[in-house]
Amino acid sequence: MTMQRTPLLLHRLLDRGARIAPLEEVVTQTPEGPHRQTLAQTRARACQLAHALRAAGVQPGDRVASFAWNGHHHLEMYQAVPCMGAVLHTLNIRLSTGELEYIANHAGDKIIIADQDLLPALEPLAGKLPTLERVIVCAEPGAGPWQTSLPNAVDYDEWIAGHPADYEWPELDENAPMGLCYTSGTTGNPKGVLYTHRSTYLHTMAQCMTDVFELSAVDIVQEIVPMFHAMSWGIPFSALTLGAKQVLPHRFMQPEALLDLMAQEQVNFSAGVPTIWQGVRAAIEQNPGRWDLAKLDRITCGGSAPPLELIRWFWDELGVEVIQGWGMTETNPLATYARRIAKRSQLSTPAEEHVANQGKAGMLIPGLELQVVDENWKPLPHDGKSVGEVLIRGPWICSEYYNDPQPDKFHGDWLVTGDVGVIDSEEYLVLTDRSKDLIKSGGEWISSIDLENHICALPGVAQAAVVAAPHPKWDERPIAIVVRAPGAGIGEQEIQQHCLARFAKWQAPDEVLFRDEIPLTSTGKIDKKTIRAALQSEGYTLPDLR
Amino acid sequence: MTMQRTPLLLHRLLDRGARIAPLEEVVTQTPEGPHRQTLAQTRARACQLAHALRAAGVQPGDRVASFAWNGHHHLEMYQAVPCMGAVLHTLNIRLSTGELEYIANHAGDKIIIADQDLLPALEPLAGKLPTLERVIVCAEPGAGPWQTSLPNAVDYDEWIAGHPADYEWPELDENAPMGLCYTSGTTGNPKGVLYTHRSTYLHTMAQCMTDVFELSAVDIVQEIVPMFHAMSWGIPFSALTLGAKQVLPHRFMQPEALLDLMAQEQVNFSAGVPTIWQGVRAAIEQNPGRWDLAKLDRITCGGSAPPLELIRWFWDELGVEVIQGWGMTETNPLATYARRIAKRSQLSTPAEEHVANQGKAGMLIPGLELQVVDENWKPLPHDGKSVGEVLIRGPWICSEYYNDPQPDKFHGDWLVTGDVGVIDSEEYLVLTDRSKDLIKSGGEWISSIDLENHICALPGVAQAAVVAAPHPKWDERPIAIVVRAPGAGIGEQEIQQHCLARFAKWQAPDEVLFRDEIPLTSTGKIDKKTIRAALQSEGYTLPDLR
Repeated sequence: MTMQRTPLLLHRLLDRGARIAPLEEVVTQTPEGPHRQTLAQTRARACQLAHALRAAGVQPGDRVASFAWNGHHHLEMYQAVPCMGAVLHTLNIRLSTGELEYIANHAGDKIIIADQDLLPALEPLAGKLPTLERVIVCAEPGAGPWQTSLPNAVDYDEWIAGHPADYEWPELDENAPMGLCYTSGTTGNPKGVLYTHRSTYLHTMAQCMTDVFELSAVDIVQEIVPMFHAMSWGIPFSALTLGAKQVLPHRFMQPEALLDLMAQEQVNFSAGVPTIWQGVRAAIEQNPGRWDLAKLDRITCGGSAPPLELIRWFWDELGVEVIQGWGMTETNPLATYARRIAKRSQLSTPAEEHVANQGKAGMLIPGLELQVVDENWKPLPHDGKSVGEVLIRGPWICSEYYNDPQPDKFHGDWLVTGDVGVIDSEEYLVLTDRSKDLIKSGGEWISSIDLENHICALPGVAQAAVVAAPHPKWDERPIAIVVRAPGAGIGEQEIQQHCLARFAKWQAPDEVLFRDEIPLTSTGKIDKKTIRAALQSEGYTLPDLR
Repeated sequence: MTMQRTPLLLHRLLDRGARIAPLEEVVTQTPEGPHRQTLAQTRARACQLAHALRAAGVQPGDRVASFAWNGHHHLEMYQAVPCMGAVLHTLNIRLSTGELEYIANHAGDKIIIADQDLLPALEPLAGKLPTLERVIVCAEPGAGPWQTSLPNAVDYDEWIAGHPADYEWPELDENAPMGLCYTSGTTGNPKGVLYTHRSTYLHTMAQCMTDVFELSAVDIVQEIVPMFHAMSWGIPFSALTLGAKQVLPHRFMQPEALLDLMAQEQVNFSAGVPTIWQGVRAAIEQNPGRWDLAKLDRITCGGSAPPLELIRWFWDELGVEVIQGWGMTETNPLATYARRIAKRSQLSTPAEEHVANQGKAGMLIPGLELQVVDENWKPLPHDGKSVGEVLIRGPWICSEYYNDPQPDKFHGDWLVTGDVGVIDSEEYLVLTDRSKDLIKSGGEWISSIDLENHICALPGVAQAAVVAAPHPKWDERPIAIVVRAPGAGIGEQEIQQHCLARFAKWQAPDEVLFRDEIPLTSTGKIDKKTIRAALQSEGYTLPDLR
């Protein structure tokens, strides 16, 4: 052993910010205004929490679940639970009672730490979680006392009070688990991905690279993407490592509330899904000049692909770079990044190409490997044309699901992502669709995402979803569900003509249906499963079959 | 195993640049002007070199030595030798024949790859290196044929020609060795540090962070710090990973030649030791307006601490940020970084403090741990006052020397750096001295580095060294060796008064000696051992003892 084999444990990174920038702030929105504490206080409270968990019998490897918004309590769990050797299981607060019951039992959660306002969603689980020993409640300022029939409930702040404000983090194996996230499966039961210290450590270092998210200690970082969703893309870990100021919106997720916080705290880096940024844009357009966003510099956008038109708007109107990130729960979660300019040769290309770059799923983060393969697992050329299933591997990619073998999700040491796309000659991954959402018409594939992006670019369209409807001859045909922008009167003919300007007739939707809203999944993606089910139960048939 | 345990092997990083930016350039200076090849060509030639080495019987773990300037051949070795599983031993071309003989034999070098112009320095080793099987010569354009009596010598380009331009890099253990550097020991024999894939992989990721060197694919990187010295601070590995353009000066190291290359290739990031930057500054001052350095943005400076005055000049005159990096061969090699602004709270501090920040050894790179300890190994407070020995540990810190146990260089799992300093309340390491260069006068320590920096800030002073002279009463007393700037007539009294403006009388030098030059070590540091030896052989005595 010639070089030290220091285990890649998270405490080595997460303790750093509180040491180099102890007075930097963590701001959490509350009904009584922003709650502020320093990074030093955050670490001290995380140490107290770790002591309280240990006193409650939590052992290395035990699952401690969170059921919480993005706030300082949740951030303290992010620091305490992995560093003390336990596993932070971030329960998705938007799941149904049935899903929660399945997941909490599958994970064997020993403790759940929940926000006060979310207790009603947990209440139906009382008596149904045999491994659950105790519930810790993060009280909401001014909300008054809480009640629950869940076992051994206690107030978070009272529970950790009096414990020492420092903790000697254990020296674990770097492959010890530190986090557990379940995917919102579109088929079958949710599947768990058990992150390790090593995988999250390496992901954190990668995220802090200039060429990836360019995160820095001088940033003011707003995590809108939920901490219960793919670990908020790992951003809390990076911010704790660097010593950046963090701004956490808690349950105040309306666009106006997010913008108020952004302007007031001078946020320069914010992270959210496309529907958030659509809402933020609409709020700005309806209230011109209301928010001073001069400091805002970069926003990251993931979960699903943002329309090009949205990317362009943020640059043209606000000078804000939308950094698209592609990944999934199984990739810990960031795998690629798409920036305006990702290499020197792009410095001299026209601005419109910079927008096109941002619209791609992006370039591979250093350390990962990517392939697009045909039906026989043969790697396809990087020509921007050869469409295939996307495979990925590397030190922060999952190799199996937690207590749930799914051999068809892996091929050798590659993760089969379920995404379909091409790699272009510039080595960008461009996704055409989730494999299950591709529309197969007459033996040819139609990309519902391409159609959605194109339709969304029309003024008068607020949101669009394209799904397949069954057809006896063509197998499937696309139809579009559209939500009009407030006050807009756009009609079907206009949308159809817009589609035919770019797509072949057979690729354009057979019909456009206008709706008041589009259903979203618990992670904010367009819920095509629900849309298709609703159409079926309505007895929908395509125009040429009526 | 829930997450993939992909070994952290260098090929996973180093192949990336050639893939995402295949047409990006590697520029090498030659007597006939710049030689240019692309990253794709560099990787192809590295693969050919790997095949040639394998065909010559090089096995994983075997030592392949380089004896070369910074150029594309050397860069190809950086890529080929580690990725194929062998160990790149970078021989320092400035060592004496005796040192080279000791080191090459201690390493057991099997092959030496040498630049043509450096063959004369190797020639005296003929017959003295029993493990050496073969010498590969990198011919210099226009230099004509070469000759050597070293065994089985062959031309590099001819040797690799015809081999396949791709190579299936082996899947090694991530703790397999990849590089070997010897420290220029000031006492005893040189000691080897055997870097592993894991240590260099993690170092590379850290170096590419925004908050460290901020390296990016859009950079044009000039490596002046030799690739035979602490792996050119790891910058070639980062540049290959990101796909950055590299500009390599080869043997054309005169300030004017470096500046010509910098201006012509539009370098924006350059790396060198303080003496290089002193020379560059002098050349610019003597030739105002000759070079267009508008693109130059950051220069890194390591090996020894640059005078504050130099840091300030680069910022004031050129708008260039000097990033100080501290480390050593034993730290793979980067451990800390010092930037103008390293955290948000510094954004609002006065500009003069930004210069002061740069003058410190810096903040710890994420992943490493640092302590300053007293004589009983007790950690000292981070108060900016408590001086002690600097200890460091982490995944790219050495844990033993290569085939040469040196137990006194380690304390538990900490490396005893031999540097002496304080940690201030902002968590910056500030070095006061190498422990062996501290001057002990009347039981108190005097920092020779502080005195040198202060004296260098005087106009009229080109270089200064402060060393200890023996004193029967005080134990040691400082004296200053000064090289005047060209045409300057500064005298001893002026320097003494300048010292007394900042230092106590007992801390100021007892005498100032003017010399035409100051001896440097093979790695460009002030060679205090030689200065002291020369004074002794001159029979130097302090003024009050005459």
